[in-house]
Amino acid sequence: MRLLLIGFGTVGQGFAEILRDKAPMLKEQYSLNARIVGVATGSRGVLYHPEGLDLDVLLDAIERGTLNDYPESEGLEKGFDTETLIRESVADVLIEASPTSLTDAQPALSYFKVGLASGKHIITANKGPLALAYPELKRLAESKGLHLRFEASVMAGTPAIATGLELLAGNTIEEAYGIFNGTTNYILTQMEGGLSYDDALARAQKLGYAETDPSGDVEGWDAAAKVLILGTTLYGKQWSMDDLDVTGITGISQTDIEMAKQSGERYKLIARVTSEGGSVAPQRIRVTHPLAQVGGATNAITYKTDLMGDITLIGAGAGRKETGFALLSDLLAIKRLTT
Amino acid sequence: MRLLLIGFGTVGQGFAEILRDKAPMLKEQYSLNARIVGVATGSRGVLYHPEGLDLDVLLDAIERGTLNDYPESEGLEKGFDTETLIRESVADVLIEASPTSLTDAQPALSYFKVGLASGKHIITANKGPLALAYPELKRLAESKGLHLRFEASVMAGTPAIATGLELLAGNTIEEAYGIFNGTTNYILTQMEGGLSYDDALARAQKLGYAETDPSGDVEGWDAAAKVLILGTTLYGKQWSMDDLDVTGITGISQTDIEMAKQSGERYKLIARVTSEGGSVAPQRIRVTHPLAQVGGATNAITYKTDLMGDITLIGAGAGRKETGFALLSDLLAIKRLTT
Repeated sequence: MRLLLIGFGTVGQGFAEILRDKAPMLKEQYSLNARIVGVATGSRGVLYHPEGLDLDVLLDAIERGTLNDYPESEGLEKGFDTETLIRESVADVLIEASPTSLTDAQPALSYFKVGLASGKHIITANKGPLALAYPELKRLAESKGLHLRFEASVMAGTPAIATGLELLAGNTIEEAYGIFNGTTNYILTQMEGGLSYDDALARAQKLGYAETDPSGDVEGWDAAAKVLILGTTLYGKQWSMDDLDVTGITGISQTDIEMAKQSGERYKLIARVTSEGGSVAPQRIRVTHPLAQVGGATNAITYKTDLMGDITLIGAGAGRKETGFALLSDLLAIKRLTT
Repeated sequence: MRLLLIGFGTVGQGFAEILRDKAPMLKEQYSLNARIVGVATGSRGVLYHPEGLDLDVLLDAIERGTLNDYPESEGLEKGFDTETLIRESVADVLIEASPTSLTDAQPALSYFKVGLASGKHIITANKGPLALAYPELKRLAESKGLHLRFEASVMAGTPAIATGLELLAGNTIEEAYGIFNGTTNYILTQMEGGLSYDDALARAQKLGYAETDPSGDVEGWDAAAKVLILGTTLYGKQWSMDDLDVTGITGISQTDIEMAKQSGERYKLIARVTSEGGSVAPQRIRVTHPLAQVGGATNAITYKTDLMGDITLIGAGAGRKETGFALLSDLLAIKRLTT
């Protein structure tokens, strides 16, 4: 399988590293023979080689700051613009991990359309196009007999999407709820351990869990984007952020945490979605509740179903190799579904 | 898809009920148009109609005790022996839910071979053939381009098998461990609540969680059979029960439970499997451990992986509709993988 990688930050690099390190295992156990033929970044260069790029050299180049250092060779093309690369390249799968826009989903949305129009399956880690344009993208993909997969968009490689959409198919999912944001869960866990909100946030930033501007996480927007994705993929509902009730954790004080603790309870930022709507809000739950045991940056999702009752999945919600693996898991799924 | 149903007890009936009740949804959402063309029981008759059997009439007949009451009609055949039915019938999938033998895996093992030889995919709830003959069955199926699926064999419809073998593909699974038997977990939960072992067992029997002879559950053999299945499917290891360390819960007293409680711990019957071997044994775990919160008849499995860290799945481990759904989930998977 020939892959195009659009976006080559942490997630894209994590994916390329896994592909490099696991090539023999993937070939032997899953007959997966995957080559990255093209890589596009926003400002660090674009490469294309129809025979495939050398992953060691590629990772080394990006580590040093730019793909333009990748050594010249016959057949290598540098400097395509991204849409041209997607349109003109000979590739089977477009793997997209460029920055998310929850406002207009661009530029990813255009990339997807060009990719589908030129016959490429899409794998994405990008919440924007899913939250804003899933029905249209799904229709486009289906009309071309192509796959559109997005495990990485919710809970990284913890298979929340495949479980909800495929493994539980046949159930009516009455509700999906859980802890969809690792940064806020880490902060709440640290506060539970005695830190103030500010100190817990500072620690999360130091560890790379929270960004310099942490508002996307701490105000609940990241979890809310995942609610939008579940709303559109599970229930076919095209909501915007304005349709959701979203409260973050910035209003939770050390005193709140202590008071909850004295009642045998714990604050968690719980995201919920049903066919009627969605929400994100801090909630006090009993310490004996399964979600109360989900600590640190870990995520969890419970699907409440008619046939199976509650099915809960707990695992990493972020991380270089964890999100990189999510892209690989979609690639292996496409391999299973198309051969 | 034309289905043969071998075994028509709780699990087979649960499956037929789901198929009856969900037919429009399955057709609309998943383009699944499934008909049961043949049903074989051990002593309550065998039916075959190439155009499909009426599910209401079928369920009604078995409810009243025998399939021989199923009304005659043109094309209907009664009284085939099971192997002849499997060999001669025109069907796409053999769904097998007959009683398990962990000694020789019969008669299911023969059924599978006849089914594969006559070009039918296999879906099974039966632990025996998997524990004893998986590599051979897998080779046979692969050589014919057929699927062999067995979600129901471990944790009912909670997708433990699909998660371990498909969704986590690409990971090295260093260990799988968890609570694989609902009966013993129910008994331990009841003892935690104050009942003696005998009273808890009696209550489990009354609710249908435990059989009159409960030894398969309480001595750990049911969980051990699942360890054998995970050993052979995850690691390619063909172990027998003698290769495992198996201890049940019959030695756990109310005093043990109380002492654990005073240390903030809880007994759980934990099954484990690595590439090196497997075990089943009661273990004291901290009440804050995620598995400690898995109460009643619920099951749980944690996959310890290289890329994703720990992935935990919690859900029903038994039940009429829960195991019936497991068969449906495999059918939908075959549909996805073959169209």
